[in-house]
Amino acid sequence: VSRSGVITLTTDFGAADPYAGMMKGVILSIFPAARIVDLSHEIPAHDPAAAAWVLLDSVPFFPPGTVHLAVVDPGVGSKRRPLALRNGDRFFVGPDNGIFSAFLPADETVELNRPQFFLPKISACFHGRDLFAPVAARLAAGSALADFGSPLADPVRLRLPQPVQEGDTLRGEVIRVDRFGNLITNIPERLLPPSPFAARIGGTDVPGLFPCYAAIPAGTCAALLGSSGRLEIARPQGSAAAALAAAAGATVAILKRI
Amino acid sequence: VSRSGVITLTTDFGAADPYAGMMKGVILSIFPAARIVDLSHEIPAHDPAAAAWVLLDSVPFFPPGTVHLAVVDPGVGSKRRPLALRNGDRFFVGPDNGIFSAFLPADETVELNRPQFFLPKISACFHGRDLFAPVAARLAAGSALADFGSPLADPVRLRLPQPVQEGDTLRGEVIRVDRFGNLITNIPERLLPPSPFAARIGGTDVPGLFPCYAAIPAGTCAALLGSSGRLEIARPQGSAAAALAAAAGATVAILKRI
Amino acid sequence: VSRSGVITLTTDFGAADPYAGMMKGVILSIFPAARIVDLSHEIPAHDPAAAAWVLLDSVPFFPPGTVHLAVVDPGVGSKRRPLALRNGDRFFVGPDNGIFSAFLPADETVELNRPQFFLPKISACFHGRDLFAPVAARLAAGSALADFGSPLADPVRLRLPQPVQEGDTLRGEVIRVDRFGNLITNIPERLLPPSPFAARIGGTDVPGLFPCYAAIPAGTCAALLGSSGRLEIARPQGSAAAALAAAAGATVAILKRI
Repeated sequence: VSRSGVITLTTDFGAADPYAGMMKGVILSIFPAARIVDLSHEIPAHDPAAAAWVLLDSVPFFPPGTVHLAVVDPGVGSKRRPLALRNGDRFFVGPDNGIFSAFLPADETVELNRPQFFLPKISACFHGRDLFAPVAARLAAGSALADFGSPLADPVRLRLPQPVQEGDTLRGEVIRVDRFGNLITNIPERLLPPSPFAARIGGTDVPGLFPCYAAIPAGTCAALLGSSGRLEIARPQGSAAAALAAAAGATVAILKRI
Repeated sequence: VSRSGVITLTTDFGAADPYAGMMKGVILSIFPAARIVDLSHEIPAHDPAAAAWVLLDSVPFFPPGTVHLAVVDPGVGSKRRPLALRNGDRFFVGPDNGIFSAFLPADETVELNRPQFFLPKISACFHGRDLFAPVAARLAAGSALADFGSPLADPVRLRLPQPVQEGDTLRGEVIRVDRFGNLITNIPERLLPPSPFAARIGGTDVPGLFPCYAAIPAGTCAALLGSSGRLEIARPQGSAAAALAAAAGATVAILKRI
Repeated sequence: VSRSGVITLTTDFGAADPYAGMMKGVILSIFPAARIVDLSHEIPAHDPAAAAWVLLDSVPFFPPGTVHLAVVDPGVGSKRRPLALRNGDRFFVGPDNGIFSAFLPADETVELNRPQFFLPKISACFHGRDLFAPVAARLAAGSALADFGSPLADPVRLRLPQPVQEGDTLRGEVIRVDRFGNLITNIPERLLPPSPFAARIGGTDVPGLFPCYAAIPAGTCAALLGSSGRLEIARPQGSAAAALAAAAGATVAILKRI
């Protein structure tokens, strides 16, 4: 599998601290031609599942042969294993805590157990910089995945919440709230009943599907297909999250025939 | 017009969400040599005029042949048109909602109506990723503007607020508050009376012009020429916005002979 | 000294405003092959010492021949001098206000007093864009440091706070709080007594050293060696800063034999 030279970063480090910058310094020291893209450094702290959804939504838009480096890593320095994997023509490097669950089972998975590919000194607090960045840089530069360690048969896999059909009701949940206050759910287009239907969240029934944000009447919430291909609840020029007092984890029930 | 290979991004997507990263993935998939610069992803939500000011202030500092991709797009998915334009040796790609008003009339303007240049699947929520990024990438790689669509004669143009002379008083307004709490106005140097003068904002008269931030006495607000070449009201090591309880839109009246 | 082509940016401009983007436009106009890395744009406003610590911690992870451009510059436009310096194979460009104290004395220091290397028009508010970015770009492209000005013998040097031994007690301080609420101190590993010991902060004694975040019992604060090689106080999956009501500047006393 050839490489694009692109490396994406997904972390919970925040953009204010220099941690992401240090990782970029390490990458450019090893692979000067790397083109590095920040996906997000504002993943909720210590929440690998939130990063898994971001990767699921974002990875398809990157060139084949891209290396996705993701570090949401509360177990850093403990016995949690470091890993790298390949799913089709996409590569992933990070902690073995389920952060890459959306891409499991993988075509190849290795435990990163060859210190000659790490920085000479490994801190117990920052494997993103000392271990994962050097491996991602070498992988993006063309090294074979198998070079970095022994096969790992049982990577940790998180169960990303999936919608459930219960009689006439499809029950999903909000997995992310974006800057606009849009509620992004885990309900894919193929599971939705024919429009019109209602999405019940909290005590409120929200009508759907609307074709786009601008078609929603001002001051009301409505359901539409978001850019992820999943149901989204939005309020034009306002925040659906605030209007519905809803956050990640809130249940969304789809009721047929509004 | 030759191209610099540089693409700037200006959006209201926020830096926490992966939307800007996805756009970069699309760009690098099409034009791997692109050098992408974030101008801001924190434009006030749904406010193309705010983005227009940011572009006005920033574009002159980029190389000729740069493509400026800007997406503040409450009308995404509706009948608002997508466009690309050229003003001199600068290119712009985004929604036809006035976001490029500072660069109108343009030398060439096209409606983006040739889907072969978009992603195969266009969501109704995210033309930044599915439509504008692919066009910007191809434009930055050297395609002719005319390739992307038919000429568009009447792009939407916002009236960016301009200062008005009323007798002895020049009346402008605050167009942006920066991280330091500096109040950036729409009053250009050439309209200012000889110094000293007073800038009245809220009920307060602020003296000007001071030569630089450090020349302003501690704990006081004063007027100086900002880096945009327009009047700015600042408070050294503090926030003029907080001290004067002023925000974007506040009126600033320049009174001759302090 | 050869150059890596990498330029890092460290400022207090914030990521919402377009100021950092403008600097990148200037850099790419002069040196199109520059690879630019943001270290932080969220340095506490007007605090060069905070930037000095960030540079101290980050610079070692960048390739030799990197140019570190840092602008936390309350004295912009006043008589404070602009400078560039070299320490070993690292280059630095910014205001002469102590922001590079961690790298002084330098091997070469010059006052930037040759306007032919600046933008044609210099604002009194934004030397980052008009003066420092053009110099950093030329320096990263290979120009000799001595080209940019006359030797400067007495750059301003801040005394970054150092821990002090007082009898049995080692007294240091918190120099930064990161996104996780970890308290990063100025106490290096080599000054620490053998573990176990207590780190007293506010009225609380915090035990140390723990090997990693995950080893700290839930709901408690503890001391460990941070990624900077200095003592850090953390609370797993929570904020030590909040739990201990501590911020930058708080005293940390290390007491032997817990």
